[in-house]
Amino acid sequence: MSEPASAPFLLACRNQPSGRVPVWFMRQAGRSLPEYRAIRGTGSILDAVRDPELATEVTLQPVHRYGVDAAILYSDIVVPVAALGFGVDIVSGVGPVIERPFRSAADLDRLGPFDPGAHCPWVQETVRAAVGELGDVPLIGFAGAPFTVASYLIEGGPSRTLARTKALMLGEPELWALLLDRLATIAAAALRAQVEAGASAVQLFDSWAGTLSPDLYERGVLPASARVFAGLADLGVPAIHFGVTTGELLPLLAKAGAHVVGLDWRVPLDEARQRLGPDVAVQGNLDPAVCLAPWPAVEERARDVLARNGGRPGHIFNLGHGVLPETDPSVLERLVELVHGWEVRP
Amino acid sequence: MSEPASAPFLLACRNQPSGRVPVWFMRQAGRSLPEYRAIRGTGSILDAVRDPELATEVTLQPVHRYGVDAAILYSDIVVPVAALGFGVDIVSGVGPVIERPFRSAADLDRLGPFDPGAHCPWVQETVRAAVGELGDVPLIGFAGAPFTVASYLIEGGPSRTLARTKALMLGEPELWALLLDRLATIAAAALRAQVEAGASAVQLFDSWAGTLSPDLYERGVLPASARVFAGLADLGVPAIHFGVTTGELLPLLAKAGAHVVGLDWRVPLDEARQRLGPDVAVQGNLDPAVCLAPWPAVEERARDVLARNGGRPGHIFNLGHGVLPETDPSVLERLVELVHGWEVRP
Repeated sequence: MSEPASAPFLLACRNQPSGRVPVWFMRQAGRSLPEYRAIRGTGSILDAVRDPELATEVTLQPVHRYGVDAAILYSDIVVPVAALGFGVDIVSGVGPVIERPFRSAADLDRLGPFDPGAHCPWVQETVRAAVGELGDVPLIGFAGAPFTVASYLIEGGPSRTLARTKALMLGEPELWALLLDRLATIAAAALRAQVEAGASAVQLFDSWAGTLSPDLYERGVLPASARVFAGLADLGVPAIHFGVTTGELLPLLAKAGAHVVGLDWRVPLDEARQRLGPDVAVQGNLDPAVCLAPWPAVEERARDVLARNGGRPGHIFNLGHGVLPETDPSVLERLVELVHGWEVRP
Repeated sequence: MSEPASAPFLLACRNQPSGRVPVWFMRQAGRSLPEYRAIRGTGSILDAVRDPELATEVTLQPVHRYGVDAAILYSDIVVPVAALGFGVDIVSGVGPVIERPFRSAADLDRLGPFDPGAHCPWVQETVRAAVGELGDVPLIGFAGAPFTVASYLIEGGPSRTLARTKALMLGEPELWALLLDRLATIAAAALRAQVEAGASAVQLFDSWAGTLSPDLYERGVLPASARVFAGLADLGVPAIHFGVTTGELLPLLAKAGAHVVGLDWRVPLDEARQRLGPDVAVQGNLDPAVCLAPWPAVEERARDVLARNGGRPGHIFNLGHGVLPETDPSVLERLVELVHGWEVRP
């Protein structure tokens, strides 16, 4: 195992010149890969991640195939609450389904205290094994942000509106704050365990934060997410903060304490950098749906993303959301080639 | 029937002082109303709208209950393509489902020519009957924008990613342009027929336009939507242009030719007006999910929307998307009262 501190991905996270533009893809380890489908089996992902050998192999697959600049732990944002026994299943084609959704203060007792080493030791085992294999390719650990995890626990299943979640936030602000505080503690503990096991960076997924207006985000969500980042500050690893439809939230996502803000494809990268200022790195932001178009269109759109960064340091190329399962892996291969061949102007 | 030209809603559409802030709600006619559920029956909405007596009653219900400043025709954005025989069903809890989705140039023949008076005469009948009852309350006609209707025809059912739609746009730009051109002609004809029957304003719903980056919107969608608005210019009625997650698209939505741009709740109203400039009116933008919270929270959020307009003319209060079915109608009643009581500073 070599020291990856000078890896292009980690330099870019720190907004420093990185020689080339680093690239990885959210959900790079997953259903779009035939080698994943070959070993994954049909059970729940929550069972698959309990198998460190399998989870390690899945984590490494995209690094081997694509030569991406970072691996990301094969896991799921509901792993900690599931390991705590909250009663979470992940239904194929649906998403997380909660047997008894969060309804009142009594449900707080179902959320902790969380001890990663005791509740889900397989996560650290997977991180250790993967880092041992990765050499100088950094591994990204991750957790779900308090808001997004709360939305699953409250809605009980997929929801387009998050109406119950917002009603709780607005109608019972004290209970809401306790819930988010609990989930912040859990997320921070999960990320710390992954870093202690060898992860070189972390990403906090607040996938649905962009369903909130900036006001509500700042009042009801930012304090808890800021606690997660603050709880990791002593570890000295870069932190990425990501959600979709967050154009209006970008400065707040940075304010929460992230070094890198992940962008979906709706906001042009140059516009996003302007909103974020010179001190924050960005990750993104090719529309994953574009990857289903013929290559010349993919290439044109990818070059547009690269060009909008204008050669500044602090850009990690990625999609604006996860790889779609129907994506042809050869398109991602060509994307990596294109990004690595992009000449970074000094 | 009196002349509604001086109605607050129409004055606000024209960015002129309107005495009070006008208010209506997207999906105000619908499942949240007990009087709607009482007369609606269980059949498809596509059957319900073919009954002018029923459709007129449903159109009027929210005006009677809430005293809103505008009615909106009870219909659906897929009515024209369904009337043309494209093979569209609306499945409860799912949305539009297409028997044979749009796949190739041969499918263009299934989309026209469209003659509203021949293909769906009941629409004009409903407009005439409703306008006859509404007195000085304006009726808004509406149609689906080419992109959003195309997305249903191509995806064949609900899709979170619109991946097929985007792949067609990028991969077969000529076929895409022909499809959008066809749908623009249909939308313009549908809106013209509604205005000729008495509608005082129109709204073009491009609900999913915000899934596109500004570049792709401008290149692949704006020309067709601009053709819809241009095709109505001689009618002299105000035109509203609406979609969700459109924060980055707002200037382009106006550029297409709308007098009013509808805002979802993600973008603060003052920020939106800044992006749009002084000549464009706005409609919005309370989060419909907020209406499920206790009244003090609803009130606080609604006052925030009103305050952000800063007393300028050209603000029509509305939600940022449709009324959620589980909304308590008494909350909307109180909202109308609040908005009408808001003192417009000179």
